Amino acid sequence: MDKVIITISREYGSGGRIIGEKVAEMLGIPFYNHNLIDMIAHESGLDKDYISQWQERVSSPMLWGWDAAIAGFIPEMTAGYYSNELKMFEAQSKIIRDLAEKGSCVIVGRCGGYLLKNDPSCLRVFIYSDKESRINRILEEYDAETLDQAEDMLKSVDKSRAAYHEKYTLTEWGDYLNYDIALDSKLGIDECAKIIVEAAKAKINK
Amino acid sequence: MDKVIITISREYGSGGRIIGEKVAEMLGIPFYNHNLIDMIAHESGLDKDYISQWQERVSSPMLWGWDAAIAGFIPEMTAGYYSNELKMFEAQSKIIRDLAEKGSCVIVGRCGGYLLKNDPSCLRVFIYSDKESRINRILEEYDAETLDQAEDMLKSVDKSRAAYHEKYTLTEWGDYLNYDIALDSKLGIDECAKIIVEAAKAKINK
Repeated sequence: MDKVIITISREYGSGGRIIGEKVAEMLGIPFYNHNLIDMIAHESGLDKDYISQWQERVSSPMLWGWDAAIAGFIPEMTAGYYSNELKMFEAQSKIIRDLAEKGSCVIVGRCGGYLLKNDPSCLRVFIYSDKESRINRILEEYDAETLDQAEDMLKSVDKSRAAYHEKYTLTEWGDYLNYDIALDSKLGIDECAKIIVEAAKAKINK
Repeated sequence: MDKVIITISREYGSGGRIIGEKVAEMLGIPFYNHNLIDMIAHESGLDKDYISQWQERVSSPMLWGWDAAIAGFIPEMTAGYYSNELKMFEAQSKIIRDLAEKGSCVIVGRCGGYLLKNDPSCLRVFIYSDKESRINRILEEYDAETLDQAEDMLKSVDKSRAAYHEKYTLTEWGDYLNYDIALDSKLGIDECAKIIVEAAKAKINK
């Protein structure tokens, strides 16, 4: 098989990660998502837990609350955070480009589609679904215990990802022109995986 | 095969019509696009040429120019046009719903996806591409003779379709949440058709 890199952007709770795993399995190629954290830690020198907590989020002085503001810590903390955020983005960009260079793989999130937009072997996928389906998935598969909690998580994670994407790519998250294919996961997880494999063949045959 | 209705919304010059034709051919099901005009004429009592000229466009008093305005004709003409526009929309809505009732088919444009959004056998597709690719297709396949002319046609038809869609569906044209699948036709015309057939199978198996 010729090389194909499949990048998956996904709305929170849309099932994009599971779809990506299935695609990787079907094509017999590596899958990169949380396992990128170790590599980013190694490349950036930052702590794994820190990366895990702050990935795909943008810095905001509001994050540290009033205690820090009153103590006058904000400027130093903000500067430190900005610097770490940039370190993380640079490290993961390098890793993603290196992985794409090496061979076929599936990469979830982290502006992968943007980083590889000029690579003709890259298929850029966006997975979405309506709010109701995503809230149901968040309740089933994540830590949310109540409907309100699931809704808050959905809003907050989507907002973070959109802000992160827009900050680093200067394009709008979810703008279809950034993707080769966009899929509503209500078509079914296995079905979406099959459709993406079909689309991957189109990229390979180009 | 179980019933599947495939509705295709498309940016002008994206190749959505040709992709739809190929999908219909691959699945051996009827294809509806310009051939809907006769049916709409029959259902609405309006003239075929009138329908052909004004379909997927919204009424605007500006269309008749200053001569008509000076002559004081605008109110009558506007009222007549609004009434015909509504007649057209009602006739085509009835026809599209009747066709979907009867059996599998591919329907291009005319808010088909919106009209059948609650039909579980309907796969709602959106075909798009970047401006450059669409302008190239407009130069190759339509009446445009110069780059400027192709660009004007692209802007004008997209604007009409978007305004028409938004007026009659109250949703934004090109908002991915209105579609099950969105495809950049740069993946290839045949390839897009194959991907849509794969997506149609997902609908059929639901």
